[in-house]
Amino acid sequence: MKSETLERLRRVSTATLCTALFKRGLRHQFIQDVRPLAAGRPNMVGPAFTLRYIPAREDLNPISVFQDRAHPQRVAIEQCPPGAVLVIDSRKDARAASAGGILVSRLMMRGAAGIVTDGGLRDSPDIAQLPFPAYHQRPSAPTNLTLHQAIDIDVPIGCGDAPVFPGDIVVGDGEGVVVIPAHLADEVAAEATEMTVFEDFVTQRVMEGRSIVGLYPPTDPATLDDFAAWRQAQGR
Amino acid sequence: MKSETLERLRRVSTATLCTALFKRGLRHQFIQDVRPLAAGRPNMVGPAFTLRYIPAREDLNPISVFQDRAHPQRVAIEQCPPGAVLVIDSRKDARAASAGGILVSRLMMRGAAGIVTDGGLRDSPDIAQLPFPAYHQRPSAPTNLTLHQAIDIDVPIGCGDAPVFPGDIVVGDGEGVVVIPAHLADEVAAEATEMTVFEDFVTQRVMEGRSIVGLYPPTDPATLDDFAAWRQAQGR
Amino acid sequence: MKSETLERLRRVSTATLCTALFKRGLRHQFIQDVRPLAAGRPNMVGPAFTLRYIPAREDLNPISVFQDRAHPQRVAIEQCPPGAVLVIDSRKDARAASAGGILVSRLMMRGAAGIVTDGGLRDSPDIAQLPFPAYHQRPSAPTNLTLHQAIDIDVPIGCGDAPVFPGDIVVGDGEGVVVIPAHLADEVAAEATEMTVFEDFVTQRVMEGRSIVGLYPPTDPATLDDFAAWRQAQGR
Amino acid sequence: MKSETLERLRRVSTATLCTALFKRGLRHQFIQDVRPLAAGRPNMVGPAFTLRYIPAREDLNPISVFQDRAHPQRVAIEQCPPGAVLVIDSRKDARAASAGGILVSRLMMRGAAGIVTDGGLRDSPDIAQLPFPAYHQRPSAPTNLTLHQAIDIDVPIGCGDAPVFPGDIVVGDGEGVVVIPAHLADEVAAEATEMTVFEDFVTQRVMEGRSIVGLYPPTDPATLDDFAAWRQAQGR
Amino acid sequence: MKSETLERLRRVSTATLCTALFKRGLRHQFIQDVRPLAAGRPNMVGPAFTLRYIPAREDLNPISVFQDRAHPQRVAIEQCPPGAVLVIDSRKDARAASAGGILVSRLMMRGAAGIVTDGGLRDSPDIAQLPFPAYHQRPSAPTNLTLHQAIDIDVPIGCGDAPVFPGDIVVGDGEGVVVIPAHLADEVAAEATEMTVFEDFVTQRVMEGRSIVGLYPPTDPATLDDFAAWRQAQGR
Amino acid sequence: MKSETLERLRRVSTATLCTALFKRGLRHQFIQDVRPLAAGRPNMVGPAFTLRYIPAREDLNPISVFQDRAHPQRVAIEQCPPGAVLVIDSRKDARAASAGGILVSRLMMRGAAGIVTDGGLRDSPDIAQLPFPAYHQRPSAPTNLTLHQAIDIDVPIGCGDAPVFPGDIVVGDGEGVVVIPAHLADEVAAEATEMTVFEDFVTQRVMEGRSIVGLYPPTDPATLDDFAAWRQAQGR
Repeated sequence: MKSETLERLRRVSTATLCTALFKRGLRHQFIQDVRPLAAGRPNMVGPAFTLRYIPAREDLNPISVFQDRAHPQRVAIEQCPPGAVLVIDSRKDARAASAGGILVSRLMMRGAAGIVTDGGLRDSPDIAQLPFPAYHQRPSAPTNLTLHQAIDIDVPIGCGDAPVFPGDIVVGDGEGVVVIPAHLADEVAAEATEMTVFEDFVTQRVMEGRSIVGLYPPTDPATLDDFAAWRQAQGR
Repeated sequence: MKSETLERLRRVSTATLCTALFKRGLRHQFIQDVRPLAAGRPNMVGPAFTLRYIPAREDLNPISVFQDRAHPQRVAIEQCPPGAVLVIDSRKDARAASAGGILVSRLMMRGAAGIVTDGGLRDSPDIAQLPFPAYHQRPSAPTNLTLHQAIDIDVPIGCGDAPVFPGDIVVGDGEGVVVIPAHLADEVAAEATEMTVFEDFVTQRVMEGRSIVGLYPPTDPATLDDFAAWRQAQGR
Repeated sequence: MKSETLERLRRVSTATLCTALFKRGLRHQFIQDVRPLAAGRPNMVGPAFTLRYIPAREDLNPISVFQDRAHPQRVAIEQCPPGAVLVIDSRKDARAASAGGILVSRLMMRGAAGIVTDGGLRDSPDIAQLPFPAYHQRPSAPTNLTLHQAIDIDVPIGCGDAPVFPGDIVVGDGEGVVVIPAHLADEVAAEATEMTVFEDFVTQRVMEGRSIVGLYPPTDPATLDDFAAWRQAQGR
Repeated sequence: MKSETLERLRRVSTATLCTALFKRGLRHQFIQDVRPLAAGRPNMVGPAFTLRYIPAREDLNPISVFQDRAHPQRVAIEQCPPGAVLVIDSRKDARAASAGGILVSRLMMRGAAGIVTDGGLRDSPDIAQLPFPAYHQRPSAPTNLTLHQAIDIDVPIGCGDAPVFPGDIVVGDGEGVVVIPAHLADEVAAEATEMTVFEDFVTQRVMEGRSIVGLYPPTDPATLDDFAAWRQAQGR
Repeated sequence: MKSETLERLRRVSTATLCTALFKRGLRHQFIQDVRPLAAGRPNMVGPAFTLRYIPAREDLNPISVFQDRAHPQRVAIEQCPPGAVLVIDSRKDARAASAGGILVSRLMMRGAAGIVTDGGLRDSPDIAQLPFPAYHQRPSAPTNLTLHQAIDIDVPIGCGDAPVFPGDIVVGDGEGVVVIPAHLADEVAAEATEMTVFEDFVTQRVMEGRSIVGLYPPTDPATLDDFAAWRQAQGR
Repeated sequence: MKSETLERLRRVSTATLCTALFKRGLRHQFIQDVRPLAAGRPNMVGPAFTLRYIPAREDLNPISVFQDRAHPQRVAIEQCPPGAVLVIDSRKDARAASAGGILVSRLMMRGAAGIVTDGGLRDSPDIAQLPFPAYHQRPSAPTNLTLHQAIDIDVPIGCGDAPVFPGDIVVGDGEGVVVIPAHLADEVAAEATEMTVFEDFVTQRVMEGRSIVGLYPPTDPATLDDFAAWRQAQGR
């Protein structure tokens, strides 16, 4: 991956990235029905490190399992590489938590880039206060042992109906989270950056009163001239 | 429609309007499961201008369709009359966007009164910053082409399980959106205005410690006297 | 119930309480899919006083039923004891409201501790402004008569898939609402208080950079020594 | 109730009954999403005797509770009057059973007219073999104790989003189950019987090739003459 | 369309057709969650003739609307061309019927090829007895006026999340219903016919004990020889 | 596992097994919302062999992937041991198929004991004709490539919200499918066998007109005497 790719992804939206992926035939990369715990934050960007849950069998999930230092949930927290996003397959089930405030704090301290679950997080008001991106479906106070058994670390998973492979580049903004296949990250980041410049131009023109006809998309050739001039003036 | 009707509707709540409609036998006029992107805004009020989506067939929805100036989504944005609310039938499917920031900005600049979809909006953090009422189910980054094909403009539609006919008066507040059949707008606006005066009185009395018994509804005759005096004192 | 129990419950989280209940074999006490109307408030704590709705039969639910001072919805509001939490079984159906601003205001004025419904509240922007804890699934403008008929007061109910018996202790925080069986309130409050002290210690250590291994849970004996010292220093 | 009403209800369809109720403003009397365990049976007809479940709290629902002869589920089975239909409010939750083969067999032997739950029945293949009408959402093997606690007998309930009051007349056919308010049973049974005669006439004419225009509804006056003659010929 | 196309479509399965469509990039042509009322029937094949419902507004949907000979539901039944399949957009809402026994009978007598709704049919036990293909989500006794207002005839619709354009070729079998874009019907029918011959060969070999490795797909060259010989022997 | 365990499990119901598991604290072992494709068959019994799907990424799932002999779906079919039940984690998504007729036929020919998916099967009418137990949520014609990517073989999975570990004993009857943890199979099979004898006795007595009071459970000591005599007479 190019060195500038992560930085570029910090400056584009998940909406723009979804369009770049759509152009490549990928329609299911947006993680459905998850949202940030806190609004107005910078983008979350990093490679996916995954954790897979299955439904909890009661005899295997007493509170004492956390005594085991090899418990996959705890191991995942301690192994998630700095800069990575921990993505959890909670089978879209938010009736019990995927993780809580202490583990998320530890993940932050270890330098991870963020956490995403298609289930729920507990201690969510506390997590929302952390300077750390976290996305879930809805708050959920019950311990994960109630319904989720951590079973696998860093395998391909589904999260919110999106396929997530370890190493895919995960980007989150105020809207949600998108998963970019690793081999596409460079080109998608570059294309989305260009799209963003153009969309910023379009937005400015629209706010000045221009119609979208011929402007978006730029089917009127004059639009491209106008854009070229605007871009030069902006130094972008 | 009376000249004062729209203004009256700006000062009543969707809850009060729903009750006025309930009294007339209309129980399905509240658009289910949509919410404003921004809190604390004035009411959205205007006649409905509609857009209907069907599920997208892939061969008819490549990214290039937007090159066509006759594409119904773009046409709807450019034709929605000033003062009108664009109401989109997205089949309650928020897995892809109904529209995004640029189109919503254009709609605002053209003088529309607001936008409602029972699906999702993309660029939702940007849209939330606009001084323009927008309601949806949840944020959704994927382009509409992923799942929605714009097919019809200004026909009767369903939106959030509510029937919406072009020209119906659409009112949105911090709670959600209600659809008032056009022929009832004057009488419903007038009745809701009266109900609101009374409810303001009731609220004041309740906050002073009065029981709701005999007060709400005013089955105690003294309540009506009290209300008359209060109303006169308030000059309403 | 011990005199200090309610006070203790004001200082612990629903997440911690769920874990204490989980240890006792109770896995369904968190009310699913309800949220506070306002963020950042103190805990809601009080014994449950319940109201049960069934689906509304149209001939029994004209607007005039509220003329009847014996209507169970209104009676529940006037009978809910000071300090109690009104918990409403709305069958998880938020398509019509469970209650509105005036009734919630009256409940507040009567000294109730809060209100919870697994349906929706109307006038929700107003309710959010009250200094009174209220939890629901989502805002809902239509009058309760549209879909809900109040039928029973203070009987055992389900709310958000949790069993609620009159007198159970209901605790709400920024995450949601948990129901503690009355006979367990003392011991659960005491245990959760102890857990909270330990979790605060753990959080501090984690924020200082410590690994959770051996710390949470404290399988490393040194952790317990460290905790003992910390606790003494903190005076807790 | 007239003596012939139950007999009449055995000979009309739930579809026709729903229309007769619709004419009276009742739109929610069809129990949603339940179906008969066996096809091709005579109608189920009888007054409702109800059982209400709430979510099971684990400490109150060990297997040993059935040792208690006062357990409401067992009491309901032994108290349901001959000729009545046991209608169970299972909160539309079929993840655990509402009842099983032995209890349904006992209900049949006691002379009940049938059983309906908006959850599931266990031992469903056996129940399907009994000469006894049973309706549920889907088969469900887990014992009711897993998720359902029987709490109340013969109170008003919701079942499949329909309101059910004890004594309402419940009618089931191959399509599903409808609940007729007790005070309307006579007139609805009479009207539905008349409607059925006319619909049989219409069906015959349609199968002979006639258009529905002017026939259904009979806006062509000749249709009424034709019907009168047909009816006389049929002796109905 | 070629003359043999409809006949070919009578002899292939919806599963095979879905694969042929998948190869052409079409992934949403299977109507989700509908099933035949009767098992073991020949395929339903014909061009789509559509009917669109929106949510019913109560004042526009009294029982008397059927007196109007221009009511779209009735008009659709009388206008659906012989050989066509009536496909109804019921917004996946089966809480009220899309149509009933008399209308379906009339449709059959007029020579239509079948009926499909993503809602429910009433009089479903009767319809199941007709020699006429009918598909729905589940039986539903309430009259369509309860929740559905017929609004448009033969426009593009969604049905069970599939896009349906008038004239698309609709094929139903014991598994469900698939929608073939009109312009692809010939080639898809031809390809599916060929695929079916090969799948019949594969099935026979599998039932004789052969592994699928190298057989399905025929990556082993010997498989193609074997198939050629088998096909010749079968005269297909 | 004892040699007689599998045979015993062929003669008890999933309902009885769920009760035996409930007594051991296991409440989530019934696979929710799956049903047999054919009624009236013998029990399906065998150890679980699992296949895990994740959401399909379009670029990884063209039709050509089946050319790869290492494709996990095909490998699973060829590796599932004779006597085992193939259990597929399809994330409860039946919008595309988990497998089709040819693969199921091959599985049968290889001696597998059955197949279960919490998604759908294609060619379901054909599969229903095979003398082979198959369970799914609903028929689904689209190829699995549309939404499912086979990713893992014989790992722990969730299926219909039940945890399934490789080697767990899977039992299916006309009601559905239950998963017995391997280490409990012997004792659960033995206990369920005993329970079945008693339930057969109870059923006979109930059909003779006895009340369930004192009989079920046998709180009346005479019941146990009666049972002992009956059992001896039956030679069970």
